[in-house]
Amino acid sequence: MAVSPTSRTTGPGELLQILRDGAPRARADLVAVTGHARTTIGSRIDALLRTGLVRTEAASSTGGRPPSVYVFDPGARVVLAVDLGAVHLSVAVLDLAGTVLAEERTVCDIAEGPDPVLAHVNELGQQLLDRLGRPATDLAGVGIGVPGPVQQTTGRPITPPIMPHWDGVDIKGILGRQFGVPVLVDNDVDLMALGEHGAVYPEVSHLLFVKVATGIGAGIIANRTLVRGTDGAAGDLGHVAVPGGRAELCHCGNSGCLEAVASGGALVRALRAAGEEVATSADVVDLVRRGDQRATALLRDAGRDLGAVLAGCVNLLNPSAIVIGGVLAQAGEHLLAGAREVVYRRSLPLATKQLRIVTASTAGRAGLLGAGRVVADHVLAPAAVDALAAAQTPV
Amino acid sequence: MAVSPTSRTTGPGELLQILRDGAPRARADLVAVTGHARTTIGSRIDALLRTGLVRTEAASSTGGRPPSVYVFDPGARVVLAVDLGAVHLSVAVLDLAGTVLAEERTVCDIAEGPDPVLAHVNELGQQLLDRLGRPATDLAGVGIGVPGPVQQTTGRPITPPIMPHWDGVDIKGILGRQFGVPVLVDNDVDLMALGEHGAVYPEVSHLLFVKVATGIGAGIIANRTLVRGTDGAAGDLGHVAVPGGRAELCHCGNSGCLEAVASGGALVRALRAAGEEVATSADVVDLVRRGDQRATALLRDAGRDLGAVLAGCVNLLNPSAIVIGGVLAQAGEHLLAGAREVVYRRSLPLATKQLRIVTASTAGRAGLLGAGRVVADHVLAPAAVDALAAAQTPV
Repeated sequence: MAVSPTSRTTGPGELLQILRDGAPRARADLVAVTGHARTTIGSRIDALLRTGLVRTEAASSTGGRPPSVYVFDPGARVVLAVDLGAVHLSVAVLDLAGTVLAEERTVCDIAEGPDPVLAHVNELGQQLLDRLGRPATDLAGVGIGVPGPVQQTTGRPITPPIMPHWDGVDIKGILGRQFGVPVLVDNDVDLMALGEHGAVYPEVSHLLFVKVATGIGAGIIANRTLVRGTDGAAGDLGHVAVPGGRAELCHCGNSGCLEAVASGGALVRALRAAGEEVATSADVVDLVRRGDQRATALLRDAGRDLGAVLAGCVNLLNPSAIVIGGVLAQAGEHLLAGAREVVYRRSLPLATKQLRIVTASTAGRAGLLGAGRVVADHVLAPAAVDALAAAQTPV
Repeated sequence: MAVSPTSRTTGPGELLQILRDGAPRARADLVAVTGHARTTIGSRIDALLRTGLVRTEAASSTGGRPPSVYVFDPGARVVLAVDLGAVHLSVAVLDLAGTVLAEERTVCDIAEGPDPVLAHVNELGQQLLDRLGRPATDLAGVGIGVPGPVQQTTGRPITPPIMPHWDGVDIKGILGRQFGVPVLVDNDVDLMALGEHGAVYPEVSHLLFVKVATGIGAGIIANRTLVRGTDGAAGDLGHVAVPGGRAELCHCGNSGCLEAVASGGALVRALRAAGEEVATSADVVDLVRRGDQRATALLRDAGRDLGAVLAGCVNLLNPSAIVIGGVLAQAGEHLLAGAREVVYRRSLPLATKQLRIVTASTAGRAGLLGAGRVVADHVLAPAAVDALAAAQTPV
C-alpha cells in the first residue's frame, strides 16, 4: 500500500497563507475559511504567535470588550536581497512583504571571481543589518541574482558566459555559511521578472521582462509562475536569430543573434566604428539623451531588431505585458518605439489585443524585489512555517 | 475583516486527490498522510464511497480478517472526448484515468459550420455510449478541441482563421444542453500537448508539441502546466517569421511566416508548381513514402525552416522534449532530420543538453487523450468532488 508524497495539509503554515494578504482576521473568520474546529484554529494561532510572524490587534468595536484579531507581521523577519551584475553590486534588506528597508549599490567587477565578490556581499549585507539595528537572528534568508544560467537544484551557475571563474561555484553554500540562513540563487533577469511582476503587475498572468544592457536576456512569467526551463536556461533572448536581420557574428559562435545587433555592446561597437568615443551602454544612453542623431537612429534600429524577435515571443506566449528594463531602456522612448513598430506590424491581431509594451517601473530595483519575493515565498511556505512553529513549541 | 477567497482545505475531494494515483490505501495510511483524525477520514471515505469514485477492496493479508483498503475507480464515470480538425472528426469515450474505451473517426468539413458539425458530434457520442452500454448518468463531462484560438473564460472560438461561421459560437452551451454535463472547449494543439505529455512524458516539466499539418501550431507545457496565453492564442508557431527564410507571402497578410514555407499547404503548392498532382498533406506524405526525391527534399527543407523557428523556442523556453505531430510527421524522419540539424546548430549547448526532438507516440490520439485529461481534472477537482458528495448525502 503506497503512501502518497502529499504533505500533511493542516498546520499553522496553512493558516499563515490565509493571513499573508495582511488583512486582520478574527478567530471566527479563520474557522469559517478553513472549516477547521475552533480549538484547532486556536492552537494554530498560538503556534503562529510564538513564531512572531503573526501578532494580535484589538479589533474596532462599537461597544463591550473588543475581540482580538490576528494579523501577519511582515517586519518580524527580514530578507537580504542581492543583485549581482557584470559591473555592479546592489544589496538591500527587505521585510517579508517586499518593502525595501535599506539599500546600497556599488561598482563591482564580477570577473574578479567569487571570493572577493561574495566577501563584498557579506560585508555590505552586515552593514545594512547593523544600520537597521536588526540582529542576525532576524534574518530569514538570502536571495541573490547572478547574470548567467543557474541550476535550480543546486543554486550553482552553469557555464555562465560573462562570469569567468564562477562555473559551478557553490554560492548557496558560501553565503549560507556566512549568514546561517537559507540562500536562494537565481538568474538575474528571472528575478527582475518576478520583482516587476509582483510589484507592478500582480494581476497579469503572462508577462515578459526583457533586460537590454551589455547583453540581452528575458524572464518569462506564464500562468503567474516563473518559467526557468529544464536547465535554468529559459529566456535566452539574446541568442535568438533576428528574422530579416543582419548576419552579424556573435560571441556565442553563431551569427545573426539579437545580442550581436541590438545590445548595448553592439551599439558601442557601431558608434566607435563611426568615430564616437563611447565605452559603455551608459555612454550610449548619454549620447541619445544629448540628442545625438546617429546614436538615436541606431537605438531605434536596435528597437526594431528587438521587435522582430519579440513578435515571435508574442505569437508563442501571448503575454499581456512586455516590460523593457536594463540601462538602454533609460534612453527615452526610442528603443520602445522601434520594438512596438515591428511587434504590432508582425504579430497577429488577437495576440496583441491586450498587449502593453512598456519600460520597467521599479527603477533598477526589480532584481532586488524579485530576490525578496522568492525568499519570502520560501520561508513562509506552509512546511517551513510548520517547522519554525514546531521548533518554538515550549517543552 | 476580510475573509480570504481560499476554499476550505478539507473534505472528501481532498482525500480523492491522494487516491487518484490508483494505489489502494488503508484508513491508517490516509490518516498518516493527511494528519486528520480517524473519525474525520472515516466520514470522508463514506462520502467518497457514495459517489462511486472510490470502492473497497480486501487487502492481502497473511492471516486473520484482512483489513479493507480503498481505491479510486476510474471506470465509475466516463468522459466524451472530441477532436475536431479542419476535415476530420474524432470522438472517443474514456474513463477517468484516460483509458480509451471506444473511439470513432470520420470525415467532417468544419466549414459546414457549427449546427451540422455539433449535431454530428452529438450523434457519434450517443452511439459510442450506447455501444458501451453506459447510460447518460455515467457521463461526467465533455472535452472538445477545435482548430483555432479559444477564449478560456467562455469556451468560444475567437476569430478562428480556418473555422468560418464559428467565431464566438457557444460550443460549451450547445453541447452542454445536449449532454447535460460540463463541457470544456480548448484549442486542438493545446489538448494534443496535454495528451502527449500526460500519456508519454509525465515526468517532463517543459515540453513543446508541434502539429505540422495543413497549418502549423504548437502547444506549450511549462512547469508541467499548459500555457494558453492571455487570449488563448499562445503557441501560434505558424506565423513566426523564419530567420533567414524566404519572404513568401502568408495568408495572414505578413510574409516570411513559417506556415507559408513549411506547412502541408506550402508543400502542396510547391509540388503542384513543379507539376506533381497533389491535393492534400496526406498526398505529400504518400509521395515521400514512395521515395519521390523532390518531395523528400522539400520536406527536409521544411524541417530546416521549422528548426530555425524551433531554435528560438528552445532559447526562449528551454524544453526537454519537442514532440512533432500532425500528418507531415508521419512521412518518416525527413522532417525531424531537418529540424534537428538547425536546432542543434543554432541553439546554445546548455539549452539542448537534455533536449529530445521526437515524433508523437500517441498515434493521432493526442487530442482525445488531452480532452480526457482536462475533463477528468475538472470533474475530480476537490470542490467538484465535495459538491458531488454533498448531493449524494442521505437525508
